[in-house]
Amino acid sequence: MLLRFGQHLIKPSVVFLKTDPLFALVNRKPVVPGNILVCPMWSVECFCDLHRDEVADLFPATQRAGTVVEKYFQGASLTFSVQDGLEAGQTVKHVHVRVLPRKAGDVHRNDSIYDELQKHDKDGEASPASWRSEEAMAAEAAALQAYVQ
Amino acid sequence: MLLRFGQHLIKPSVVFLKTDPLFALVNRKPVVPGNILVCPMWSVECFCDLHRDEVADLFPATQRAGTVVEKYFQGASLTFSVQDGLEAGQTVKHVHVRVLPRKAGDVHRNDSIYDELQKHDKDGEASPASWRSEEAMAAEAAALQAYVQ
Repeated sequence: MLLRFGQHLIKPSVVFLKTDPLFALVNRKPVVPGNILVCPMWSVECFCDLHRDEVADLFPATQRAGTVVEKYFQGASLTFSVQDGLEAGQTVKHVHVRVLPRKAGDVHRNDSIYDELQKHDKDGEASPASWRSEEAMAAEAAALQAYVQ
Repeated sequence: MLLRFGQHLIKPSVVFLKTDPLFALVNRKPVVPGNILVCPMWSVECFCDLHRDEVADLFPATQRAGTVVEKYFQGASLTFSVQDGLEAGQTVKHVHVRVLPRKAGDVHRNDSIYDELQKHDKDGEASPASWRSEEAMAAEAAALQAYVQ
């Protein structure tokens, strides 16, 4: 069954963690290797509209997902981010937590990761040709599943 | 009673939201007006070391704190971010969620907010002369307290 992710429909093959209230998926155009997204099952646009219990479910799962990608991609640190609204750079109208395993020197200047991330979102929506193949994404999701505890 | 925030001790006057397991404080050098921090009471460095229940407490409180600063500072959006580890730009060794109310054009280029944020952290630690006065911070915290529900 396809999953709703804002204006997109997501194939289950790119999901590596799924519980009743949420799912975590690999990215079609990761900013750094292992850049994944964690989101509630319900397609709600604004973080403020999530019920307290939904928020309380979302972030422990994000913590788990972070541990998975940090191990698999051998990250030294993690960046977590929520862009809540247009002025914060949100492009997909569905609350999602971005998780990025980080390494020293992983972008041309380590500080500019978020800058990259936001430009990237806007560019990515407009250029499907730059997306990864479904096969590559499904293979990554399958590999990550093995690390989920 | 002073509160431990990593290598810092925080006066209660700069805290605008406090529950048993966490507190939210105003920033001595906000990147944008209303840039506040939410953190667990326990001074733990790594997000992965927070217990599931602590994570489940932290983010609903962050959601509340976000609503407060968005209203008070008339933000149109919110940015949430956790820098978990040195390579992600963490400077204070105590898990904290950064919350920033956002407006169109609030930084010279809206996309560069995180870039500003990380440079800012590093510069800020080294230049106490650029910090706001304790009085200004306490006044802001008192004003925000009135919006906490």
